[in-house]
Amino acid sequence: MAKKILKFGGTSVGTIERIQHVANIIKKEYDSGSQIIAVVSAMSGKTNELINLSKNIANDFNKRELDVLLSSGEQVTCALLAGALIELKINAKSWLNWQIPILTEGEHSNARIVNMNLDKVNNFLKKGVAVIPGFQGISKNGDITTIGRGGSDATAVAIAKLFNADSCEIYTDVDGVFSTDPNKIPVAKKIEKISFDEMLELSSLGAKVMQSSAVQTAMMYDIPLEVRSTFTDRKGTKIFSQQNIDYTKSVTGVAYSKDDAKITLIGVEDKPGVAANIFEPLNKAQINVDMVIQNISSDQSTTDITFTIKRDVLKKTKEILESNQNIKYKDLTHNDKVAKISIVGAGMVSTPGVTYRMFRGLAEEQINILAISTSEIKLSVIIDEENTLNAVKKLHTIFELN
Amino acid sequence: MAKKILKFGGTSVGTIERIQHVANIIKKEYDSGSQIIAVVSAMSGKTNELINLSKNIANDFNKRELDVLLSSGEQVTCALLAGALIELKINAKSWLNWQIPILTEGEHSNARIVNMNLDKVNNFLKKGVAVIPGFQGISKNGDITTIGRGGSDATAVAIAKLFNADSCEIYTDVDGVFSTDPNKIPVAKKIEKISFDEMLELSSLGAKVMQSSAVQTAMMYDIPLEVRSTFTDRKGTKIFSQQNIDYTKSVTGVAYSKDDAKITLIGVEDKPGVAANIFEPLNKAQINVDMVIQNISSDQSTTDITFTIKRDVLKKTKEILESNQNIKYKDLTHNDKVAKISIVGAGMVSTPGVTYRMFRGLAEEQINILAISTSEIKLSVIIDEENTLNAVKKLHTIFELN
Repeated sequence: MAKKILKFGGTSVGTIERIQHVANIIKKEYDSGSQIIAVVSAMSGKTNELINLSKNIANDFNKRELDVLLSSGEQVTCALLAGALIELKINAKSWLNWQIPILTEGEHSNARIVNMNLDKVNNFLKKGVAVIPGFQGISKNGDITTIGRGGSDATAVAIAKLFNADSCEIYTDVDGVFSTDPNKIPVAKKIEKISFDEMLELSSLGAKVMQSSAVQTAMMYDIPLEVRSTFTDRKGTKIFSQQNIDYTKSVTGVAYSKDDAKITLIGVEDKPGVAANIFEPLNKAQINVDMVIQNISSDQSTTDITFTIKRDVLKKTKEILESNQNIKYKDLTHNDKVAKISIVGAGMVSTPGVTYRMFRGLAEEQINILAISTSEIKLSVIIDEENTLNAVKKLHTIFELN
Repeated sequence: MAKKILKFGGTSVGTIERIQHVANIIKKEYDSGSQIIAVVSAMSGKTNELINLSKNIANDFNKRELDVLLSSGEQVTCALLAGALIELKINAKSWLNWQIPILTEGEHSNARIVNMNLDKVNNFLKKGVAVIPGFQGISKNGDITTIGRGGSDATAVAIAKLFNADSCEIYTDVDGVFSTDPNKIPVAKKIEKISFDEMLELSSLGAKVMQSSAVQTAMMYDIPLEVRSTFTDRKGTKIFSQQNIDYTKSVTGVAYSKDDAKITLIGVEDKPGVAANIFEPLNKAQINVDMVIQNISSDQSTTDITFTIKRDVLKKTKEILESNQNIKYKDLTHNDKVAKISIVGAGMVSTPGVTYRMFRGLAEEQINILAISTSEIKLSVIIDEENTLNAVKKLHTIFELN
C-alpha cells in the first residue's frame, strides 16, 4: 500500500469551499488505496494577519510568543480539513505538532525538524487520514517553534522522509514548474520532469514554486516530489534525482532575476586572500553577493573582479569597498541596471554547443553580455536590464522550450 | 506574597489596544508585588467566527476537531498578551493547555478541569507572569477539549483553587453585579459585596455577569471572587462566602426572567410518585422546568401543580402532558405571557416582613400574583409579563436598592 504525503499551500485552503475541494482530492487518493498524510498551511492571508497583530504590539515581538501566535493558523486549517474529511465519511484526525510530536532544533522562527514519533500516526494511518500542520514543531523544552526556511514544504518533505513515503505531492496554485515565468513570457511551458538540481537552480533564480530548502532535503534523501495545481486535474511537474530522468532537451528552463546591480573592481592585486578581503566586510554587513566572476589578469600581477548584488544595497556596498583600507584596487565601476539571465539544464553537460548557441542568440538580438558565469547545469550572463524580456524570449526559442 | 488569578473576558481583549490595556492592568498588580496568573478568553467575536467556519462545513461538525479549532482562539490571545507584557519589560510566558498540562474529564465541548501540573508554572511565577488560555484543556488521551459550562470563568476558578490563590478577579465589560438589570432599570445600583448563594440566585435569573458553574466551584472551595470592569478604575463586586458578609440590607437584588410560560395541572391525585410521573417525561424530552409549586389540596384527595418553563417549549410540554397515560389530572390551564420576578438576599432570613412588604408593594401597583415560591434567600413570584418593569422598579424602591 503506497504511502503518500499530500501538502496543500495557503491558497489551496484559503476558503471553506477550497478546504472542501481539498477534502475531495484526498478522498479520491484515499479511496484508490493509498495511506495518506495531509500537510496543510494556514489559510492564505492568515499568517500575515497574525504577524500584523503582533507588529501592532511590538516590531520586535517576542519570538517565542510569535511562534505560539503563528502556529494557530495551521491548527485552524487542520481542524477544518479533518472535519471536512469526516463529513465525507472518511475517518480523519488532526495531529498537532505536540501531539505527534514534531521535534525541532534551532531558534524560534527558524527551527528545523529533527525527528517525529511515528508509531501513533502510523497506527492511525491503517484506519484513516492524518492531517498535520506544516511550518511548526516543538523544541526539546516543549516550546512551540516555527520552521524558518521552506515552511510547510519543508514539513511535508521531512514527513515524507521520516515516514518513508512513496511520494510527496505539493499542491499549489500553479500547474507546476514552468520553463520561465508564464506571467511575463506567455509561451512559457510547463516542465513535465525536472531534476532536483535543476529545480534548485530555477527556484533560487525566481521560479518560486517550492522553497529551495525543501527541495534540498528531498534531493538529499531522494524523495520524489510532484508539484501540481489544487484547482485543475492536470498533471504537474515531477521532480526526481537526475539519474532517473531521460533528457531529450539540453536546456530545461530559462530563469532571470530582477533588481540586480553589478560592481567591477579593476586592478585588484592577484594574490591569495584578496577575494576574502573583499567579501568578508560585505558578509559582515549582511550584503548578499550573488554571482562572482574573476577575470584572468592580463599583466599577471592584477586582476578584475566582478560581482552582482541586489540594487538596493549598491550604495552601502560601494561605501564599504571605498572606505575599507584592506581592499586595494585601481578603479571601481558599477552598473545598477543589469539583469541576470540563466539557462538551466541537466542535459547541458552532455550537449555540445549550448554555450555557443546562447551567445550567438543574444548577439542576434544585439544584446551585449557584461559578464558570464557557468556551472555544471547552469549558464548565467549579466546583461543590461532593458534587454531582459528579449533575451528570455530568444533563449526560450533557441532551446525549443516553447 | 499574594497569588492572584486575573481573568479577562473576550471584550476585555477584543482589540490590540485592549490587550495592551490589559497588559498595563497586569503590570500594576505585578509591580505591587503579587504573583500573577492571567487567564484569557478568545478575542470577542473570534469563537463565533470559528464556529461559523465549522458550520459552513457541517452543522454537526466533528466535536473533537471543533475543540481543536476553537482552542486556537485563546491561544492567539495568550501569545499577544504575553508579547504585550514582554514589551512592558515584564518577564511573561504563555502556557498552553498541553504545556501545563490542564487535564480534563468528560466529553468534547463539555469537559471539566480535574487537575493540573502546578510545579512548572509555580516555578515560573517566581520570576514572571504566566498567561493561560481559558476554556480548554486536554483529555487523558492527549486530545484538546473545551470546557462546556462556565468557559474561561471556570478555568480561572479552577486555577485559583489548584494554585491555592488568594483571590480571583474576573475582569469584564461591566462594573460588577447590579441590583437589577441596569440597561432596563436606570436606578439599578452596583452591589459592593454579595455572597456566593446570592450571586448564584441572581446569575441564574438573568444577571449574566459570571457563569454559574464557576461561581459554584468558587463557593465549594471558598475562593473569594471579584467581578470588575477592565475599562474603569472603579471597584467591582466582591463575592464571598455568606459568613464573611455583614448584611445591612435584607434584599440584595431584584432579578427577572423573560419568555416564561406557566402551566397549571388542576385536580392531580395527591399521592406519592405523582410529581415524578409528571416531570420524568419532561426531563426525557429535555424540557427545562424552572419553578414548581404544589398548592395545598382543598379536598384532601387531589392537588394543583403549577410550574414554569420557557415559552418556546410550551406547545411540546402540553403535548407530552396531554398524551401521556400515566399523568392524570382534571384540567390543564396555561399562560404563555408571564414573567418571574425574584428578590434575592442572604439577609432575608433574619429580617421579618420581607414577604409581606413585597406582596403589598405589588398590590399597590395593581399587579396580580399568579404563583409564589420561596427559598432561604429568594422569593419569586409569577406575574403577567406586561407588569415586569413596573414590578422590578417598585421592588427596587421598596427594598432601598436605588
